[in-house]
Amino acid sequence: MFKKNLRLTLAMVVIALVAFSSLAGAAAPKYVFYFIGDGLGAAQRQAAEYFLQEQTGNPDAKLVMNQFPIAGINTTHSLDTLVTDSAAAATALAAGVKTNNGIIAQLPDGTNVKTLIEACEDLGMATGIVSTTRLTHATPAAFASHNQSRNNEAEIAADFIDSGVDYFAGGGYRYFVPKSWEWGKSSRNDELNVAQEFYNNNYHVFLTENDTAKFREFQPTAREKVFAVFTYSHMPYEIERAENVPSVAELTAKGIDILDKYNKGFFMMVEGGRIDHACHANDAPGSIHDTLAFDDAIAEAYEFYKKHPAETLIVIVGDHETGGMGLGFGSNYYLNMNELVNVRVSVEDTLQSAYTGDRAAFYQYIAANCDLGDLTAAEKATIEKAMDIVDNGTSDSSYGGYNPVAIAVAHITSERANLYWTTYAHSGTAIPMSAIGVGAESFGGFKDNTEIAKAMAKLLSIKL
Amino acid sequence: MFKKNLRLTLAMVVIALVAFSSLAGAAAPKYVFYFIGDGLGAAQRQAAEYFLQEQTGNPDAKLVMNQFPIAGINTTHSLDTLVTDSAAAATALAAGVKTNNGIIAQLPDGTNVKTLIEACEDLGMATGIVSTTRLTHATPAAFASHNQSRNNEAEIAADFIDSGVDYFAGGGYRYFVPKSWEWGKSSRNDELNVAQEFYNNNYHVFLTENDTAKFREFQPTAREKVFAVFTYSHMPYEIERAENVPSVAELTAKGIDILDKYNKGFFMMVEGGRIDHACHANDAPGSIHDTLAFDDAIAEAYEFYKKHPAETLIVIVGDHETGGMGLGFGSNYYLNMNELVNVRVSVEDTLQSAYTGDRAAFYQYIAANCDLGDLTAAEKATIEKAMDIVDNGTSDSSYGGYNPVAIAVAHITSERANLYWTTYAHSGTAIPMSAIGVGAESFGGFKDNTEIAKAMAKLLSIKL
Repeated sequence: MFKKNLRLTLAMVVIALVAFSSLAGAAAPKYVFYFIGDGLGAAQRQAAEYFLQEQTGNPDAKLVMNQFPIAGINTTHSLDTLVTDSAAAATALAAGVKTNNGIIAQLPDGTNVKTLIEACEDLGMATGIVSTTRLTHATPAAFASHNQSRNNEAEIAADFIDSGVDYFAGGGYRYFVPKSWEWGKSSRNDELNVAQEFYNNNYHVFLTENDTAKFREFQPTAREKVFAVFTYSHMPYEIERAENVPSVAELTAKGIDILDKYNKGFFMMVEGGRIDHACHANDAPGSIHDTLAFDDAIAEAYEFYKKHPAETLIVIVGDHETGGMGLGFGSNYYLNMNELVNVRVSVEDTLQSAYTGDRAAFYQYIAANCDLGDLTAAEKATIEKAMDIVDNGTSDSSYGGYNPVAIAVAHITSERANLYWTTYAHSGTAIPMSAIGVGAESFGGFKDNTEIAKAMAKLLSIKL
Repeated sequence: MFKKNLRLTLAMVVIALVAFSSLAGAAAPKYVFYFIGDGLGAAQRQAAEYFLQEQTGNPDAKLVMNQFPIAGINTTHSLDTLVTDSAAAATALAAGVKTNNGIIAQLPDGTNVKTLIEACEDLGMATGIVSTTRLTHATPAAFASHNQSRNNEAEIAADFIDSGVDYFAGGGYRYFVPKSWEWGKSSRNDELNVAQEFYNNNYHVFLTENDTAKFREFQPTAREKVFAVFTYSHMPYEIERAENVPSVAELTAKGIDILDKYNKGFFMMVEGGRIDHACHANDAPGSIHDTLAFDDAIAEAYEFYKKHPAETLIVIVGDHETGGMGLGFGSNYYLNMNELVNVRVSVEDTLQSAYTGDRAAFYQYIAANCDLGDLTAAEKATIEKAMDIVDNGTSDSSYGGYNPVAIAVAHITSERANLYWTTYAHSGTAIPMSAIGVGAESFGGFKDNTEIAKAMAKLLSIKL
């Protein structure tokens, strides 16, 4: 009898343990961080890590995102092409469906698709959207608006008003202020004052760089909504960001403070949006500094995770690789990351306007700002050729539509580091994913980008 | 009293279950497959998968290696540079230590490091080494020999004699036959007949393409040792492999038959060695066909795994990326894999010798063999420029030391597919790893290449 009881007890305990462990496996995270590095491929991540090792003198320095236990590889093709744009990629990441390039959270036939942010709101979670691009750009747009074209940014801005998102932070007030607001400060063709609408809906509104100090001082004391856009268009590249604009790490930390006050769990999407822009311009230092800034934002989430390890999930993805960045050039077996350490300006936002026809002045400029005070004859010839093109107003598509002089310098910088690029657009290679926390293992392995959102929906028991 | 007993019973059961599950986690695989794709980065894997989808008309076609549940990302830098060569990379993968480029399973000071193959032999497992390169090339060399230079291939071949490896299969008899063997058929400077030594040590020896039929007929009936080298140097590129040489899948399947007969577990390293060679020559179709052939070899192991899922481990790594292959070009958002489907020759082994000074004949040749019967004026100009260089005997390092005409064609092929390259050498990007089976989860996540061998050693309870 005792033996029978014991057997029964054993059986019951086994069943209970199995049930418990399977329940534990299916536990939903209370706090979800979804980090999207726009243009963040394996090369971008590794270039940033090797740069960090060079800069710190510590050969063991690692990106936070490269230390998480779960890794995955994601395919990124869209519905209509093997090389996605950021709209189709963000729709896949936000809603788990393939759509055509250019479309924001809709199918090609115009049907809206439900996004993770919307589903998390239905679930009663607090939600946040952070980006270093203007908030109406493709990636943030696809989480809280629906449109057949990513170019309809005024409509996308208006969509945000009733999105229910509790925390918006990033760049791009140009679509959130009415046409007549300040001369040259709005890109709207109507008088809709989206920022004012947010204010009317009880958001704390922070508008332009002038509100940075107030934003920094702001401490939520209860469930408070925040809408913060600091720059006319995108936030500055990290490589040349001044103190008057918050870093993406600051925006993430503030988001944690705000959303945690809701006491009902939260979902926050954070985009490192300008890694992509730098890589379009074949700007290696620009890409690296924005990747490191993105990693600093991940570090903020990781600190939060360490306080709530049993309730937090952090997932880091790219949306596609940009630039075909190759960490090798010519026939050489080295990388000279040291060549990138003293570059101080971005190619797109600054170097593009640095050449004004005065060649001597430009050479002084790149000596001071691009660590190029010692040009070889071949390097100088490359720049002079580009200057001729600019001076003559010739069209030359081999510079990808950028200022040829800026691209010539970008390529010299890359060559000196012994890395290079295959395109000014995106590439179709598969890209790394990493994750830590509750349910992180659901995201590992080889997955299509649509499967990331689906895995997250399953984990949260929500329907997309 | 009953309650106390129940509590005690519960506690014991919990302890027993925990102990069991941790034991289960630490179980050693009986059968280990270690697949190394030389030059296999994320772009190479994805290009092959997209090509397969194009070729089969099935947009859901997947590489076997891209379906395994565990993924990882590996850094590949060597001790002396961020861009490894295959010797240092293979030493890391075989022995778990960093060494300088060029060194085979030794530290820079000349100390031998123990390899996984050697440790598995100590453990009493059967062992095999398969490669599509000549067997004395860096990757196979680093598993069963020790040398300060990968170039000492005659010494490496001699080292193999007493290696105890039960199954060798690949290319490169030039280092295994004595100087006087047949005119032009040996690269040794001595009269050591390594193949004969193997024969004397009771190996079944298969030598040259002439032995392919005998190799195919060979069926092991007991514990039998096999040494098989089919080609003078490397095995042919898959894109132009004739039936008289076995595929890497065949070599792998035969290895399974042979090593399984030992009935004591086995460890087999299989290298897809010419993916790297193709990428050095910026040969997209060559890389793709060799990646697909490598995947076919993995499929053989996967079939074995399905019969012995509780005892088998399959780990697939690269040693580094080659070529800086970018799946994007110009400013375009597409890939035209269809442009690669009808290419029938490799750049390195065949196209390099196709131009003999007769331009018209060459154009006919590439129309028939490279799907280039419709050259644009710009494409033709690119080829003519390369022909001028060849005809004039000019030196031009921008072709990476290859025949300029062959490289011009390779680049046109790549551009038509809308992919491109940044280097003729290796790159320093991190690369994908995948695994399935017993202990596969030990290999996932972000790891240095040295950690793969260490994880394998831990799993097998062996000391490197």
